[in-house]
Amino acid sequence: MIYLDNSATTHPHYEVLESFQKVADQYFANPSSVHRFGSEAERLLGRSRKQAAQLLNVDPQEVVFTSGGTEGNNMAIKGIALQHQSRGKHLVTTMIEHPSVMEAFKALETLGFEVTYINVDQNGKVNPEDINQALRDDTILVSVMSVNNELGTIQPVKKIGELLKAHPKVFFHVDHVQGLGKIDLSVKDWGIDLCTLSGHKIHGLKGTGALLMQKHVSVFPLLHGGSQESEVRAGTENLPGTVAFVKALRLLHEDRKQKVNHLSRMRAMVWEGLMHRDYCKINSPEDGAPHIINFSIPGYKPEVIIHALGEEGIFISTKSACSSKQPDVSAVLKACNLDYERTTSALRVSLSTKNEINEIELFLKQLDQTVENLQATMG
Amino acid sequence: MIYLDNSATTHPHYEVLESFQKVADQYFANPSSVHRFGSEAERLLGRSRKQAAQLLNVDPQEVVFTSGGTEGNNMAIKGIALQHQSRGKHLVTTMIEHPSVMEAFKALETLGFEVTYINVDQNGKVNPEDINQALRDDTILVSVMSVNNELGTIQPVKKIGELLKAHPKVFFHVDHVQGLGKIDLSVKDWGIDLCTLSGHKIHGLKGTGALLMQKHVSVFPLLHGGSQESEVRAGTENLPGTVAFVKALRLLHEDRKQKVNHLSRMRAMVWEGLMHRDYCKINSPEDGAPHIINFSIPGYKPEVIIHALGEEGIFISTKSACSSKQPDVSAVLKACNLDYERTTSALRVSLSTKNEINEIELFLKQLDQTVENLQATMG
Repeated sequence: MIYLDNSATTHPHYEVLESFQKVADQYFANPSSVHRFGSEAERLLGRSRKQAAQLLNVDPQEVVFTSGGTEGNNMAIKGIALQHQSRGKHLVTTMIEHPSVMEAFKALETLGFEVTYINVDQNGKVNPEDINQALRDDTILVSVMSVNNELGTIQPVKKIGELLKAHPKVFFHVDHVQGLGKIDLSVKDWGIDLCTLSGHKIHGLKGTGALLMQKHVSVFPLLHGGSQESEVRAGTENLPGTVAFVKALRLLHEDRKQKVNHLSRMRAMVWEGLMHRDYCKINSPEDGAPHIINFSIPGYKPEVIIHALGEEGIFISTKSACSSKQPDVSAVLKACNLDYERTTSALRVSLSTKNEINEIELFLKQLDQTVENLQATMG
Repeated sequence: MIYLDNSATTHPHYEVLESFQKVADQYFANPSSVHRFGSEAERLLGRSRKQAAQLLNVDPQEVVFTSGGTEGNNMAIKGIALQHQSRGKHLVTTMIEHPSVMEAFKALETLGFEVTYINVDQNGKVNPEDINQALRDDTILVSVMSVNNELGTIQPVKKIGELLKAHPKVFFHVDHVQGLGKIDLSVKDWGIDLCTLSGHKIHGLKGTGALLMQKHVSVFPLLHGGSQESEVRAGTENLPGTVAFVKALRLLHEDRKQKVNHLSRMRAMVWEGLMHRDYCKINSPEDGAPHIINFSIPGYKPEVIIHALGEEGIFISTKSACSSKQPDVSAVLKACNLDYERTTSALRVSLSTKNEINEIELFLKQLDQTVENLQATMG
């Protein structure tokens, strides 16, 4: 199997599964239980939180463990909106956010909030000045992703954070699900108030993740109940999942530079390969994240290519998994002003450090074969 | 170890862990991915949903997989409130619900909803007639738990469901987290519109569960985003967790009658034992659920008893884990009109089918020893 759909989800590391298993079996007590067995679980949770905080360069109390990226994004966006609505009901985001951000904003519109959706350029990049222009006296939140999930476009998050420093009442949320481990980001230095992370995109487990929330930030919880997670996220802590998430984070940070180089090298190979194929049009910007390349093969339905490659054990995708059951046009590519032909024939290759150079070679070779076969059939 | 805190959480079955491991490793694709590997994951998810539906006697599309009981309760209560507020903003619940229900209602009060909290009798039982009396033209939701988590009181859910049939516009939610597998309940026959279940209370995994939602019910989602779970609960499906949850459900239903008998027999032993100890006052009703006994040892702080028993490897609890970090008075016992002495000295033994008769004997013996030692120390 050549798995090139790592932006949809990744294969959990063996060590991650091992940690999960051990904690689920041996530390199964409820961390909120008063007895010694509960306290042991609580201590393990505390150690995990501390370790996550160190790796992410925040304080332990700024790490809120969640059930994943969708929860983190909803919790940040709805949480800020509902908590701070007395100060204003205007929100700002971009045209190409992940569905879990986009739909959260659409839902808030039905509750009386007003949302400005900032346009992007042909590369999917947002202009910080456009964000600045959109700010109003009643703006309470700006939400911009660090790396676009379909194109790999890296947003100028640092610059946006800097300009927002002149607007201390506006909270800044960054969906960092696709960027984690792939590009640099500093919650503290860049003025990011809330930052969403997901476990299963970094060889951790589904159902795990975190929302980083700087100390001064308060939100209206999505999940009310017990006093877990500093009372912002109730529910019996998923300790095995959390330990597994932190293990994945730790592995991600080991030899990170080397890993990013490996990704960049593979991406350059895909890029180079697709550039020289007449049937391909690359949609991603060249300076995008090191693990995503989006391209179109005009004239062919992406599903047909994907199925044909799947028959050979090579797995790539159309746009994002979270919107893949939606109609054919990619809203992200449309926002980049690409023509209809390209927005309806887009494919995505997304890499992980587990991929190898020879898999890229095989993919490119098989892509030629697939297109050739299809041309012959249709011919 | 004698673990008698099964209402806080349970030890996952070996087979549950095994299923999780296998699916996390071998079916790791995103069920929303278009390729063959994604379709395999999607089929497995569909099979799990069908199996869960069969076991719970609902239709597959009525099973929404969640991250656990707290999410299910919040999703049901806030989901109904926000979705149907144009029809009315009055909600009804009881004084002794779980914090994840109680706090969800309190949160809705801050958003302009009005909540009637129904009183209970000395056994923690709610009178269906009181619910009936509380209904108004603008009532949109009644939420009552099936089994109280501190006392084990079984609520007359069937009767409440029946009387609500005369009020077809009022949704009926049941928090069945403590009742699942312990008492009978029929979503369809009893007119229950939404029913919360949790995995980790039935030897499944933390971070798993389901909300059963009858077909005619619509909610405002907590988690917006992709179109997973019929668009009411977005986020990449936690397939390993879901398969593990359904495995736990299946094991729960095997020889269920025999298991409930085993629980009842152990509970009767605890009951009998505590009845004849002068230092104990039983708080649970005799006709409660077969796995929970709540009792007070007036004059002793429950933490002291718990720690002393913990030293001997016996784990019991104070009230519920989800409110155990709160101040000393049990709100549930207070609502039952028990005196201050009893509400501040309550302990809970909660059983699982994995417990054995001889563990109950050892617990009772050690409890005597512990109280004797404390009397001597204080003496």
